[in-house]
Amino acid sequence: MPTLDYHDKIAVLDLGDGENRFSPTFLDEMNTHLDAVLADGAHALITTASAKFYSNGLDLDWLSANGERADWYVDQVHGLFARVLTLGVPTVAAMPGHAFGAGAMLAIAHDYRIMRADRGYFCFPEVDIHIPFTPGMAALIQAKLTPQAAVASMTTGRRWGGVDAAAAGIVDATAAEGELVRAATQLLAPLGAKDQGTLAAIKQTMFTEAITALTGHR
Amino acid sequence: MPTLDYHDKIAVLDLGDGENRFSPTFLDEMNTHLDAVLADGAHALITTASAKFYSNGLDLDWLSANGERADWYVDQVHGLFARVLTLGVPTVAAMPGHAFGAGAMLAIAHDYRIMRADRGYFCFPEVDIHIPFTPGMAALIQAKLTPQAAVASMTTGRRWGGVDAAAAGIVDATAAEGELVRAATQLLAPLGAKDQGTLAAIKQTMFTEAITALTGHR
Amino acid sequence: MPTLDYHDKIAVLDLGDGENRFSPTFLDEMNTHLDAVLADGAHALITTASAKFYSNGLDLDWLSANGERADWYVDQVHGLFARVLTLGVPTVAAMPGHAFGAGAMLAIAHDYRIMRADRGYFCFPEVDIHIPFTPGMAALIQAKLTPQAAVASMTTGRRWGGVDAAAAGIVDATAAEGELVRAATQLLAPLGAKDQGTLAAIKQTMFTEAITALTGHR
Repeated sequence: MPTLDYHDKIAVLDLGDGENRFSPTFLDEMNTHLDAVLADGAHALITTASAKFYSNGLDLDWLSANGERADWYVDQVHGLFARVLTLGVPTVAAMPGHAFGAGAMLAIAHDYRIMRADRGYFCFPEVDIHIPFTPGMAALIQAKLTPQAAVASMTTGRRWGGVDAAAAGIVDATAAEGELVRAATQLLAPLGAKDQGTLAAIKQTMFTEAITALTGHR
Repeated sequence: MPTLDYHDKIAVLDLGDGENRFSPTFLDEMNTHLDAVLADGAHALITTASAKFYSNGLDLDWLSANGERADWYVDQVHGLFARVLTLGVPTVAAMPGHAFGAGAMLAIAHDYRIMRADRGYFCFPEVDIHIPFTPGMAALIQAKLTPQAAVASMTTGRRWGGVDAAAAGIVDATAAEGELVRAATQLLAPLGAKDQGTLAAIKQTMFTEAITALTGHR
Repeated sequence: MPTLDYHDKIAVLDLGDGENRFSPTFLDEMNTHLDAVLADGAHALITTASAKFYSNGLDLDWLSANGERADWYVDQVHGLFARVLTLGVPTVAAMPGHAFGAGAMLAIAHDYRIMRADRGYFCFPEVDIHIPFTPGMAALIQAKLTPQAAVASMTTGRRWGGVDAAAAGIVDATAAEGELVRAATQLLAPLGAKDQGTLAAIKQTMFTEAITALTGHR
């Protein structure tokens, strides 16, 4: 389960040491931690993980056992994406390992992404598992990638290593094992502290279309 | 006129050995071939050509002789763009020579574009022949290019050689004469076979705005 | 105050030798000069400045003394952005020094931007002065930048030097001191003369969304 720590004024949210899938309990804890990040006046948020997965995304076990709550569940996941997308502090996903499906989308919702250079894949497997993106998910990804990168990642199921992902602009940088949080901290350092309300308002205006697609009635 | 062939499971649609302009008959044959590509279970589609033109676009001779059918004709052309844009297989335009106007737009509708490095131009001449893009054509192009590349190609009439077009992201790669279909095949090989319905649904969600502009009432 | 000159058929509009802020008088003179550029049949427009500022943007002194006219004032500024964005001639902002806030947005409204390599900053300070972008301003900037460049420039308050701004695609090129107008002229030379109506129509179709956000009712 996610745990929250601080490096000086920077909040570091560790998604866990497993596959870090989005169970309802996981989503609740994420929201509780995000509440704390904002209430504590953190200057920025880094999300990361402790083992070989950043996140494998949707909790398919829970979903198959709770099929009648699928719409509710997708709304919760969309809600987390929209919240991270417009969070009132600068955000970096520091991915030490695999980010798949909704796990990769969570990373896309951050302002910046840093990926381990030598191991781990960033991948949207949707086309190969026969689950098309929801309009909200597609709008989120397309709000952050160039058209070329969107086609290359959303229609192929390609597993991107860090170096190729950085070359395509899917992530902003790579770092060595054990250096991800440090690299994210260095990226954030020159930004200083921002006014939460102003930054949230700017992101809401920039990403209105994606937010509407993520949070509107389906 | 277009001819359809297969290299193993990859459909290769040759637009012809002339200017390959979009006469109504040409458009009908294209649609018939696309029907076959989907029905045959092809894994991917490469479009190419046999001589120095990929396509010169609209059939202006036919159009000037059939001015009263101009709206119908533009709808047919828009329909072909929308169909290629959302085709349920990966698509590559392998351009051995000039792609002008609507011929260049047909290439843009594909997932990927490969252009001969040493000869041939990719060009939107609309600004210089005083024919503004339709909203559907503009939305199609802008769905695939970065803002910088859209301005540089849509407002200037510039004739792009392969190397410059690749540097701007207008095409994805260049290849030597006679190597275009091979290069396209190599690009497609790692993708494997996709589920047609899933891939079509993903592209429809990604490009809803362009499809609406191309196929909506004018 | 802005002054208009011609280098052969290229109009060179000098924003001035001060901070070149957008007072109502400045905006009126800009519009008068743009009228002349179109009426004179200029082939292109270069905007530049004579001292260490391209423009510092909004006239905050005037605005604080005329708070009751803030809505009217923002409409005037939006109107200038929309006009430059869709001007019927190719446009280049040749920035010899700082472009801040609405001054940077004016540069973004041009087709191309060239920035002095060794001095001067391009900056959207909105997040740090607690003034979120209007929807029109955000739509204008996002119509011209990649998603990565938009996040990096709109959410950080970062002051971009010329070299970094060019690497991020915020500007198209850099030039040495005293070489900016020459570099802009060389960029424009291959374009030749365009039909004003066609070029304006193409830009209006390309940027419909930004124009609507800039000029629609708020």
